Amino acid sequence: MEQRISLVTLGVSDLARSTAFYARLGWHGQEVEETVFLQLGGLALVLWDREKLAEDCGLPGGGPPAGFGGIVLAHNVRTAGAVDEIVAAAADAGATVTRPPAQTFYGGYAGVFTDPDGHAWEIACNPGFPLAEDGTLTIPPFAA
Amino acid sequence: MEQRISLVTLGVSDLARSTAFYARLGWHGQEVEETVFLQLGGLALVLWDREKLAEDCGLPGGGPPAGFGGIVLAHNVRTAGAVDEIVAAAADAGATVTRPPAQTFYGGYAGVFTDPDGHAWEIACNPGFPLAEDGTLTIPPFAA
Repeated sequence: MEQRISLVTLGVSDLARSTAFYARLGWHGQEVEETVFLQLGGLALVLWDREKLAEDCGLPGGGPPAGFGGIVLAHNVRTAGAVDEIVAAAADAGATVTRPPAQTFYGGYAGVFTDPDGHAWEIACNPGFPLAEDGTLTIPPFAA
Repeated sequence: MEQRISLVTLGVSDLARSTAFYARLGWHGQEVEETVFLQLGGLALVLWDREKLAEDCGLPGGGPPAGFGGIVLAHNVRTAGAVDEIVAAAADAGATVTRPPAQTFYGGYAGVFTDPDGHAWEIACNPGFPLAEDGTLTIPPFAA
């Protein structure tokens, strides 16, 4: 099993609302059969009905989790200013800011919001994790 | 906001167990300060304590969701045989197979399992979504 993720699918309760939310952040995709596919570098982000997704995976559905879903997606940027801008734009677009942008324990600057379905996104500027020109991230060699 | 994900962090209840689980699937990373970072192409997969992750994001913790966490990660491969092999290996490593490998409605072949913390992974062979030599995925242009 090669070390890669091909798609990240977010279960959503209202596809139009979610599509509009991500569009307000500047993210656009293709809609086909009530599913939206967004190209993110070498992988795809997919927005699909939450109940259908649960059923498709053979998992019990039920409502969205009351608390934390157990997974966080991060979008890293190059400057603290970009963190502020994106978190503010997300809030304007309807996100809930769960941790306002601030200095982090690792010497970076980051904030966290949840999208309309409660999916958590961290927007971070982490000088210790270099971003390539194309936005890809390389984990540095940590001291043993 | 550029269209990319920099990190995917999975909240885990037992880091050693999760690290061993992914290692049995052939995935290896670096552990630093009770956190494991795995390089996945141009992004990082991170394994970190579930409660710390929730707290770090300003979200209520609580136990793992009883049902579906609302997000699915997919790992696409080139053959149906590879789907069978990976799902079998995951089951041997302690995963719960929630949808045994089978033909899919879109003409592919796929199965789904959950890791020790309930995170859902779909292993799929989808002839409609081409994989590049380096494993990256490109969404095809869908007919309007």
